[in-house]
Amino acid sequence: AMAGCGWARAVRGLLLDVSGVLYDSGADGGVPIAGSAEAVRRIKASGLKLQLCTNETQATRENFVRKLRALGFDISVSEVTAPAPAACRLLRERGLRPHLLVHHDLVPEFAEVDKTNPNCVVLGDAAENFTYENLNEAFRLLIGMEKPILISLGKGRYYKETDGLKLDVGAYMKALEYACDVQAEVVGKPAKRFFESALAELGVPPEQAIMIGDDIVNDVGGAQQCGMRALQVRTGKYRPSDENHPEVKPDAYVNNLAEAVDIILQHL
Amino acid sequence: AMAGCGWARAVRGLLLDVSGVLYDSGADGGVPIAGSAEAVRRIKASGLKLQLCTNETQATRENFVRKLRALGFDISVSEVTAPAPAACRLLRERGLRPHLLVHHDLVPEFAEVDKTNPNCVVLGDAAENFTYENLNEAFRLLIGMEKPILISLGKGRYYKETDGLKLDVGAYMKALEYACDVQAEVVGKPAKRFFESALAELGVPPEQAIMIGDDIVNDVGGAQQCGMRALQVRTGKYRPSDENHPEVKPDAYVNNLAEAVDIILQHL
Repeated sequence: AMAGCGWARAVRGLLLDVSGVLYDSGADGGVPIAGSAEAVRRIKASGLKLQLCTNETQATRENFVRKLRALGFDISVSEVTAPAPAACRLLRERGLRPHLLVHHDLVPEFAEVDKTNPNCVVLGDAAENFTYENLNEAFRLLIGMEKPILISLGKGRYYKETDGLKLDVGAYMKALEYACDVQAEVVGKPAKRFFESALAELGVPPEQAIMIGDDIVNDVGGAQQCGMRALQVRTGKYRPSDENHPEVKPDAYVNNLAEAVDIILQHL
Repeated sequence: AMAGCGWARAVRGLLLDVSGVLYDSGADGGVPIAGSAEAVRRIKASGLKLQLCTNETQATRENFVRKLRALGFDISVSEVTAPAPAACRLLRERGLRPHLLVHHDLVPEFAEVDKTNPNCVVLGDAAENFTYENLNEAFRLLIGMEKPILISLGKGRYYKETDGLKLDVGAYMKALEYACDVQAEVVGKPAKRFFESALAELGVPPEQAIMIGDDIVNDVGGAQQCGMRALQVRTGKYRPSDENHPEVKPDAYVNNLAEAVDIILQHL
């Protein structure tokens, strides 16, 4: 799978996508992907650095890590790069006061942020909070701003849960973009700045890091734009047609995270 | 307002937009725009032909006409061209069986259409029916089709009601287009085919018809694309910035429908 991957010898750290790489999500909390918990342990034992790089916005990092630990993953909060904390940094830097249209479990991430008299809208995967009323409210606030600012936590099209496919935040982002004639600022993969903050937390430059993900555009394409190598796993939302993607070509395909770790450790 | 409008002498029929031209809509049923009911009577008395050309999809034509008559407008059902009947013709012609995501008051327009085992989605301004569940359901049906077909009754961005601005069908159309990577087929203004069917019902060729509307893109631009002249009224959703629109320039501006009719009748 990784013939001619001499570059793997230079690797000092790994960025891992979570949903579709470590586990498959679902209403019941999800199911670990076979071999992934052991693979995380092996990465840590090898001395390679590790950071999770996720677009998860349905829970605080604390609750997200609690779930991952319950599924058998040896992960701490500081090892997770997620859109909400990145958005909080951006809001602080620019003096922005958000109106939040996000999942109710994500709200505590914004506890320290001034939300009075909003001058921007922050959109996450709000799930059941995507009501007609809430969408109209966010729209009215945006269209009423002298210069509407829409910040979107990711731009995914859809995802799969145990009870079926669901529209992801990107679809609602497009609705608001069109209605207000604005372009959203995306915080999260595939934004370059988001990968750069994950690399900073990893403490490794892009040419010595590998991204491992199941999403050909947001994981693989985004990481490559930052100068990283990127592997696509054949788990999660991977589809065989991804291997003919017109624009993005992973540096290698692997069947799953366990195989990726096998191969990377062999090259060290 | 219409200096140098010698072409107005050739006019034999008028297409009128409704919301923002005849009345301002609202939860309470709306309010007639001053002089518009009298203007409709004068058009009919003059011998000019008249057809309403509307993107209204929150009611059957029968109920829509009942509302207009209650507001004082002398209008019959055959004088209304609206997206739902046009969509029904399109569905029949192409053997399409729709899943409907529309306002519940519009559903009777599709009574004669086979809706079993849907092979397309018809999207209207569903208002309170735009729930998270209903959007996910329409999305799942579309993404599950071998060749997803999305038919949208208009593509408006938003509109104003007495209790504030509301997202219009175009915003939800963009959400589904993005999620499914499809392009919707728009039935309604500004689609050329829709204006052509309104002209056919008017019984007048485009060069002898004038469109009068408040929407610079969907009314004025759409009608001009069909070879008609088009006037923009300064009522309804008209905004002064429309007069600097980068692409569309009306053949004339008028303060309201009454003034448009004054001027047109003077030229006859």
